[in-house]
Amino acid sequence: MIVKSLNDKGIQYDIINVAQEPLPFNRALDRYNVAIIRAISMYRSLYSAAVFESVGVHTINSSEVITVAGDKILTYSKLFKAGVPIPDSVIAMSPDATLKAYEQIGFPLIDKPPIGSWGRMVSLIRDIFEGKTIIEHREMLGNSALKVHIVQEYIKEKNRDIRCIVMGKELLGCYARNIPPNEWRANVALGGTPSPITIDEKLRETALKAASVVNGEFISIDILEHASKGYVINELNDTPEFKGFMLATGINVAEKLVDYIISNFS
Amino acid sequence: MIVKSLNDKGIQYDIINVAQEPLPFNRALDRYNVAIIRAISMYRSLYSAAVFESVGVHTINSSEVITVAGDKILTYSKLFKAGVPIPDSVIAMSPDATLKAYEQIGFPLIDKPPIGSWGRMVSLIRDIFEGKTIIEHREMLGNSALKVHIVQEYIKEKNRDIRCIVMGKELLGCYARNIPPNEWRANVALGGTPSPITIDEKLRETALKAASVVNGEFISIDILEHASKGYVINELNDTPEFKGFMLATGINVAEKLVDYIISNFS
Amino acid sequence: MIVKSLNDKGIQYDIINVAQEPLPFNRALDRYNVAIIRAISMYRSLYSAAVFESVGVHTINSSEVITVAGDKILTYSKLFKAGVPIPDSVIAMSPDATLKAYEQIGFPLIDKPPIGSWGRMVSLIRDIFEGKTIIEHREMLGNSALKVHIVQEYIKEKNRDIRCIVMGKELLGCYARNIPPNEWRANVALGGTPSPITIDEKLRETALKAASVVNGEFISIDILEHASKGYVINELNDTPEFKGFMLATGINVAEKLVDYIISNFS
Amino acid sequence: MIVKSLNDKGIQYDIINVAQEPLPFNRALDRYNVAIIRAISMYRSLYSAAVFESVGVHTINSSEVITVAGDKILTYSKLFKAGVPIPDSVIAMSPDATLKAYEQIGFPLIDKPPIGSWGRMVSLIRDIFEGKTIIEHREMLGNSALKVHIVQEYIKEKNRDIRCIVMGKELLGCYARNIPPNEWRANVALGGTPSPITIDEKLRETALKAASVVNGEFISIDILEHASKGYVINELNDTPEFKGFMLATGINVAEKLVDYIISNFS
Repeated sequence: MIVKSLNDKGIQYDIINVAQEPLPFNRALDRYNVAIIRAISMYRSLYSAAVFESVGVHTINSSEVITVAGDKILTYSKLFKAGVPIPDSVIAMSPDATLKAYEQIGFPLIDKPPIGSWGRMVSLIRDIFEGKTIIEHREMLGNSALKVHIVQEYIKEKNRDIRCIVMGKELLGCYARNIPPNEWRANVALGGTPSPITIDEKLRETALKAASVVNGEFISIDILEHASKGYVINELNDTPEFKGFMLATGINVAEKLVDYIISNFS
Repeated sequence: MIVKSLNDKGIQYDIINVAQEPLPFNRALDRYNVAIIRAISMYRSLYSAAVFESVGVHTINSSEVITVAGDKILTYSKLFKAGVPIPDSVIAMSPDATLKAYEQIGFPLIDKPPIGSWGRMVSLIRDIFEGKTIIEHREMLGNSALKVHIVQEYIKEKNRDIRCIVMGKELLGCYARNIPPNEWRANVALGGTPSPITIDEKLRETALKAASVVNGEFISIDILEHASKGYVINELNDTPEFKGFMLATGINVAEKLVDYIISNFS
Repeated sequence: MIVKSLNDKGIQYDIINVAQEPLPFNRALDRYNVAIIRAISMYRSLYSAAVFESVGVHTINSSEVITVAGDKILTYSKLFKAGVPIPDSVIAMSPDATLKAYEQIGFPLIDKPPIGSWGRMVSLIRDIFEGKTIIEHREMLGNSALKVHIVQEYIKEKNRDIRCIVMGKELLGCYARNIPPNEWRANVALGGTPSPITIDEKLRETALKAASVVNGEFISIDILEHASKGYVINELNDTPEFKGFMLATGINVAEKLVDYIISNFS
Repeated sequence: MIVKSLNDKGIQYDIINVAQEPLPFNRALDRYNVAIIRAISMYRSLYSAAVFESVGVHTINSSEVITVAGDKILTYSKLFKAGVPIPDSVIAMSPDATLKAYEQIGFPLIDKPPIGSWGRMVSLIRDIFEGKTIIEHREMLGNSALKVHIVQEYIKEKNRDIRCIVMGKELLGCYARNIPPNEWRANVALGGTPSPITIDEKLRETALKAASVVNGEFISIDILEHASKGYVINELNDTPEFKGFMLATGINVAEKLVDYIISNFS
C-alpha cells in the first residue's frame, strides 16, 4: 500500500530487501532523502535504520526510536520518567528475583519478556504453579533478553485494548481490539477483532505524549484502560500495521505517510 | 576496588545485586544520586540503568550509552556519521547477503555478530570454506541478533590493539594488548598481554571523539592501527575492565571514578 | 561413594572425566572390563557408553538403555508394548497437534518434553490459557526435541511418587518422595522429602518388569499411584541418584553396585 | 512417488501428517500392518515410529534404527565394534577436550556434531584459528548434542562420496555424488552432482554389512574412499532420498519399497 501511494504521488523510490542485500557503511546509500523502515524483524529494522542514518538519510523511524519502542523496559523507563501512566511493573533478572517480583505484584499478574511482538510469550500468571513453569521455560531460551521478566499488574477491566497511530505531531486515529474467547491478549494475530471507538481528550493527550516521549515519528501505541489510573501505555510499536486500523477507522495510513514525507522532506 | 575507593572517601552507597533483587518502576529507588552500572551481562546493565533513570537517578553509563556501546552496528553508525574512522564494514542480514558481503570486502576478512563481549565469535575468515561454515553455525543460534553479520576488513598491521579509557571529557590513559600466539584477537581473556604505550595527539583526539560521539561518560575504547587510515575504532565497552589497564598504566581507575563522581554529583 | 566402595573392595579403576578427555574410537580404551557411566548430562553418558562399547567394554548402563531411559517417549513405547501401565499419553509434534491433544486428554493435564531431568519443564496445565502459554514458550526453544509435547493425564491421588532402584534382576528397594507445598512434582531437587514405604508384591513386579523391558541393568524407576490402574510408570532414570534412596532405605547403593560388578564381571 | 506406487499396486493406506495429528499411546493406531516413516525431522520420525511400535505396527525403519542412524556417534560405535571401517574419529565433549582431539587427529580435519542432516555444520578445520572459531560457535548453540564434537580425519582422495541404498538384505544400488566447487561436502543439497558408478564386490559387502549392523531395513549409506583403508562408512540415513539415486541408477525406489512390503508383510 505504501508502494501504491508512492506511485500515485509520483515519488521516486527503491525497495531494498535487507534480507538479500548487504548494507555498507559507505556513501553508496546517501543518494536517498528518506528511508521508510518496514522490516518485520526488529533487528533488521534497527540495523537498516542505523546504516542509513550513518550517511545522513532521514529514517522513519530512527534507530533510537526502534531501540526504545522495540524494548518494553526501555519504553517503560522513558514513559515513567515523563509521568505517562504505565502498568505497575517490576523488572526481574533471575528466577529468584522473579519469584520475589511475583510476591510484590500479587497474582494474577502478567509476565512478559522485554522483546517480542504480537503478544508472544506474554503470560497470564494466576498462581505460583504457573509462575514456576514459566520461569523454567524462560531459563531454557537461547536469548538472554528473553530470560528477563517484566512482572506487572494484570489489567483486564475492559476486555479490549486500544491501538492508536501517531504520525509526526498528529494523532491519526485509534481503534479498539477486542479480546477473543480463550485469550487474554487482544493482538489481532491472536484473533482480536477491531472496532471503532470515540477518541476523548485524555486518550488523545496520552497517545501524543507517549509518542513524543520516545521521539516516535510514525508509531502505534497500545493502551489499556485501568480502573483507577485511566489510560495506561502497554507498549509501542515502531512498525505500525495498517490492516486492523484501516478496517476500523477507514483512514488510509499509507497515503497519509506519503503525504507526510512529501510535506516534510522534499 | 570501587567499593574500597568509596569506603576510603567516606561515600555512602548500597550494592544492589540485580541478579537477586527485582527492580520496580516506582519511587523506591529514587533515594540515590548516582548508580554505577557494573553488571557483566549487557542486558542486566541496560535494564538496571533504565529503571534507575526512570526515577531520575544519574547512571554511569546511561541506558542510551549502553544501548549504543553494547551493539557494534549502532556504534559504527554513530562513529561513521561523525567522521570517526572505523574498519570498512558491511552489514549482512541473511546467508545470501553475507556471501555477497564477503565478495565486497574480500578475504581475509572479519565476520562478527553485533553483540557479544571478549571477542567471542569474532571470526577470521580466510576463504569461502571458512565463510560457509560460519554462516551455517550462526543460522543455528537462538538469538536473532547473532544471525546478523558485520563483515569487515581484517586489520592486522601491528599485531596488537590499543585500549583507552575515557572518563567525562578526560582521557584517563591507553595501553596496548598484544595478540598472543594462535590467536587473531587481542582480548585479555584470550591471553593477550598488556603493555604501556605512548599516547600521541591523534590517538588522544580519536579516543575522546569516539567517547563523545556516543555520549560515553565512563567508557573503554578498542582501537586498531590501520596502514593507511591510522587509528580506527574497533569497538566500545560501557563497562571498562580495570585489570589490564592498571597493570600497564599504573592508574587507579576506581579511585578516579569515585573522585569524578564526587566532583560532579555531590 | 562408588570410589570409596571400589577402594574398600580393592578393585582397580580409573576415573575418566569425559568433559576433559577426548574419547577415541580405537583400542586405547579396551583395557577395561566394565565402565560405570555416571555423567550428569544425558549426552555425555550416552556417548561415553557408545565409545566404550565399541571396543567391547561392558557399560552400566549400555547406550541402548541410556537412549531409551533418557527419552520418555521411547520409554513409554517399550512399556506400553509390554503391557506395563503408563499414564494415558498422547504425543503432539506441533502447536496445532498439541491443542488437539489437550482436548483429547482434558484439563488438568501434564505437558512435558521427552527429554530432560529433575522434573524440569514438566508443566501442570489447568486450562487453555496455561496451555497456550506453554506451547508458545516451547516453540522458542533451540532444541527440536523440546518442541515435542507429551500430553498426559494428571495423576495426583497420593501427593507423592515412588522411586525404586533395580540392579540386575534384583529390586534394591523403593521409597516415597512427597510433593512439597507449592509444587506438583516430587523431584528431590524441587524440595520433595524422602520417606520409607512398604513394598507390596504388585510394586515389586511392576518395577522389575519396567527395568527388564528396557534391559536396564542399574536403573531407577519413578512410579505413580493411579486410582484405577494402580502403579503406573512415570519415567526411568539410567543414572540413579543415591542420596534420597539411602536416607529412606538405609541401603548402601554404591557398595551393592561394586558387589554386583565383582560377581558378574570378574 | 510412494503414494503413486501404493495406488498402482492397489494397497490400502492412510497418510498421517504427524505435524498435525496427535499420536496416542492406545489402540487407535493398531489397525495398520506397516508404517513407512518419512518425516523430514529426525525427532518426528523417531517418535512416530515409537508410537506405532507400541501397538505392534511394523515400522520402516524401526525406532531403534532411527536412533542409531540419526546419531553419528551411535552409528560409529556399532560399526567399529563390528569391524566395519569408519574414519579415524575422536569424541570430544567440551572445548578443552576438543582442542586435545584436534592435536590427536591433526589438521586438516573434520569436526561435526553427532546429529544433523545434509552436511549441515560439517566443518573442515585446517588450523587452530578455524578450530577455535568453530568451538566458540558450537558452545553458543541451544542443543547440548550440538556441543559434542566428532573430530575426524579428512578423507578427500576422490573428491566425491558414494551413496548406496539397502532394502531388506538387498543392495538396491549405489551412485557417486561429486563435490562441487567451493565445497568440501558432496551432499546434493549443497550442489553435489550425481553420477553412476560400478559396484565392486568390496563396496557391496561394506554397504550390506553396515546396514545389517544397525538392523537397517531401508537405509542409505554414505561411503568415502580412503587411500589405505578403502571404503569407509561416513554416515547412515534412515529416510533415504530418492531423487539423486533414481537419476543416476534409473531404479524406481518407491516401487521397490512397495513390492518389498507386499512380499514381506501381507
